[in-house]
Amino acid sequence: MSIGEEFIIKTRYGIPAQTDQLRGIPSPPIEEDFSGTIILLPDPDTGSIADVDISVAIENRESIRNYHNTPLSLEELSYLLWCTQGIKWVLDDSTFRTVPSAGARHAIDTYLYVKNVNGLHAGIYRFLALDHSLGLISDNDGLSDRVNKAGLEQRCIQEAAVCFIWVANSYRMTWRYGERGFRDIFLDAGHICQNLYLSSQAIGCGVCAIGAFKDDEMNTLLSLDGEKKFTLYMATVGKIPNEE
Amino acid sequence: MSIGEEFIIKTRYGIPAQTDQLRGIPSPPIEEDFSGTIILLPDPDTGSIADVDISVAIENRESIRNYHNTPLSLEELSYLLWCTQGIKWVLDDSTFRTVPSAGARHAIDTYLYVKNVNGLHAGIYRFLALDHSLGLISDNDGLSDRVNKAGLEQRCIQEAAVCFIWVANSYRMTWRYGERGFRDIFLDAGHICQNLYLSSQAIGCGVCAIGAFKDDEMNTLLSLDGEKKFTLYMATVGKIPNEE
Repeated sequence: MSIGEEFIIKTRYGIPAQTDQLRGIPSPPIEEDFSGTIILLPDPDTGSIADVDISVAIENRESIRNYHNTPLSLEELSYLLWCTQGIKWVLDDSTFRTVPSAGARHAIDTYLYVKNVNGLHAGIYRFLALDHSLGLISDNDGLSDRVNKAGLEQRCIQEAAVCFIWVANSYRMTWRYGERGFRDIFLDAGHICQNLYLSSQAIGCGVCAIGAFKDDEMNTLLSLDGEKKFTLYMATVGKIPNEE
Repeated sequence: MSIGEEFIIKTRYGIPAQTDQLRGIPSPPIEEDFSGTIILLPDPDTGSIADVDISVAIENRESIRNYHNTPLSLEELSYLLWCTQGIKWVLDDSTFRTVPSAGARHAIDTYLYVKNVNGLHAGIYRFLALDHSLGLISDNDGLSDRVNKAGLEQRCIQEAAVCFIWVANSYRMTWRYGERGFRDIFLDAGHICQNLYLSSQAIGCGVCAIGAFKDDEMNTLLSLDGEKKFTLYMATVGKIPNEE
């Protein structure tokens, strides 16, 4: 049996019957603390967001790999983060967001590789959803080369204004659901990515989802262990060239 | 190492280097043939779809578990199927849809458990995306009990007008991506489900995603082997009670 089939068989509902939640172990935190430089994001609803009818946005959804070198504004980035992971309310140790998540566990952290956003240094950031802010992870020289290599030199990464890098913090999910939670984490990343595709249309941007990247290199870049915390999905965003 | 962690480690990019596509084996078909009763769906764009701004739809996204017993129209069901899996164009053995999929492989089939849709017998159907039609799988008595049991007697299933049941046909994806393709299938189901959440708002419906169900019972109900073809995600849809 292949590893994929084995994973499916062994993560059927009810296996195992025990989880850390049922054992009475306290929930891990909604979000890990961040110590370092924090950038508060502006209100995502700043009036520069176009009205786009949902049916039109869905009909026009496509992967766009070439971008214009116009920067995104910080408000536009704030809007995309709100649409993909924004917290509407918090109840005990659960968050209720613009996307669904099994048991409201939300085991995904959004990292950004920022290249061309007004008001932000190029670098890697972690989105701190509870405060709708960004924590600076690294703005070292040479990041661009490392991200491009980990991302298989795909042109959309090279042209993007910002890359979304979705990272699993799997214990937030497996604490409640056991190994089946690994399924939920991928489902959740799909929810998030779809909202990025749709909301980007309201700010004149295109998106390309990326499932192919060198896992180890990307995880090293983000200081993830690759087992309990790992990069699971990415997407590039950039302004769409004006059609003449 | 847990099965989830093992799955993550063993499905890193580039493992294995060989896939059936690289071996020169022809692609499996975009969609499996269906023999039986086929119901052509009406045009999904029939004017009864409300305009909903994308930002509003995303802001208001929430899981709704209680429904009114008003039926959906066939046009409304057609609209939801279009928004979640509609094919915009076909190129060789790839389809380009309202949702993204790794390599445009689209390894998910949408099954429906229909309970309260005007013009359709209660029963289980498979969406035939290429012709935008439905194939009747079963309208036997007793389906309701079996679906409810497989769905852990969740109230949202009992009240729903229709349940979407997303099924992986994994070889359509692994043919190209090997075992890593199992990741993509879950990502894709997330894309699809998010569009269901958003588009349902344009027809006055609520949605609740369901990750917890008895896999074996659901797979048996749909005649799936549970390894290469398996139920991976569900969602209920129904009309929202009018707020007084």
